[in-house]
Amino acid sequence: MKTDRGLLLVISGPAGSGKGTVIKSLMEKSDSFSYSVSATTRAPRPGEINGVNYHYITKEDFQERIANGGMLEYTEYCGNLYGTPKKEAEEVLLGGKNLILEIEVEGAMNVKKLYNEAVLIMLLPPSFAKQEERLRGRGTETEEKILARLAQTKKELAVAENYDYVAYNRDGGADDTADDILAIVRAEKLRLSRNPDVATRYFE
Amino acid sequence: MKTDRGLLLVISGPAGSGKGTVIKSLMEKSDSFSYSVSATTRAPRPGEINGVNYHYITKEDFQERIANGGMLEYTEYCGNLYGTPKKEAEEVLLGGKNLILEIEVEGAMNVKKLYNEAVLIMLLPPSFAKQEERLRGRGTETEEKILARLAQTKKELAVAENYDYVAYNRDGGADDTADDILAIVRAEKLRLSRNPDVATRYFE
Repeated sequence: MKTDRGLLLVISGPAGSGKGTVIKSLMEKSDSFSYSVSATTRAPRPGEINGVNYHYITKEDFQERIANGGMLEYTEYCGNLYGTPKKEAEEVLLGGKNLILEIEVEGAMNVKKLYNEAVLIMLLPPSFAKQEERLRGRGTETEEKILARLAQTKKELAVAENYDYVAYNRDGGADDTADDILAIVRAEKLRLSRNPDVATRYFE
Repeated sequence: MKTDRGLLLVISGPAGSGKGTVIKSLMEKSDSFSYSVSATTRAPRPGEINGVNYHYITKEDFQERIANGGMLEYTEYCGNLYGTPKKEAEEVLLGGKNLILEIEVEGAMNVKKLYNEAVLIMLLPPSFAKQEERLRGRGTETEEKILARLAQTKKELAVAENYDYVAYNRDGGADDTADDILAIVRAEKLRLSRNPDVATRYFE
């Protein structure tokens, strides 16, 4: 039997949604997930290895890949570009592993455009009030930064309807939310739209 | 918080797919499912109670309900009509319970037409060869009947692409297949299309 193609999962969520904790729990629960090595235009730091930490490429190469649809998503940070090469993602998926991209809403929309098969999951705190409470509870950010993050959330929610799924991450509920995501993966693999040749294969 | 509406699940599968065993396992695993009382035109047998075993109604009443879209699905058996009244199904769903209809493909298509929210699951043996082996292994049916069931399967598979999900029920795998269906239920409840007011509710 041929290896079933992995799922490309995009997980987005505003500050305070607990994405990191949920993804950590997910990795502990299942070995069906894999990472892809990102590409960057920044210089390698001492000890970093090309192809392991990142693929270190030039700005020209990076921009050419963007133009050719060779980057699933990318972002600029401190003057450097970071992104997921389509080729890297494809290798993971062909190997039968599921790939998680933890990215912001603009990147997610770009992935969906290039990869209609991608499954977009929006992770949310239980409510806006609870999100604000979590951000203030951290006690590490300035009021200005907190307000900026909350304002950003309103923008993110405005495109939420383009996502496939929404999961709410309750306080202490990362384990449960990871189970939500595992259920989504299991169900998606059974969708007829991912098994178009079901009748043919059945009679083989 | 208001009770979330239950899911209407339609499960179809050819003879030998093990629907009965899978649904039994599903009921044992979760109390989120409920039954609806069917309607029939046959006379009550001694001891049967109207509204408990069946809603016993006249043929005219039954046919009027079909014409008015008041029957989610129905079938004729030995000259009597049997069906699921939409009102009964609606009560279960509004109560937050999931409702399973174990019906054939024509009925399933009718349900989907009346209830676009319905989730259609096709349950299959691992392969046609395995299905034939199971049917013959029962040793209770005539060769003619077995061939008729296998021929029927080809017709059923031809409409499989209209289903939402396909699950394969391996030998001894009813428990695992029930878990597939539980994952489908869990994932479907998180679909954005079932939570259209997500942004509004988040900021309430």
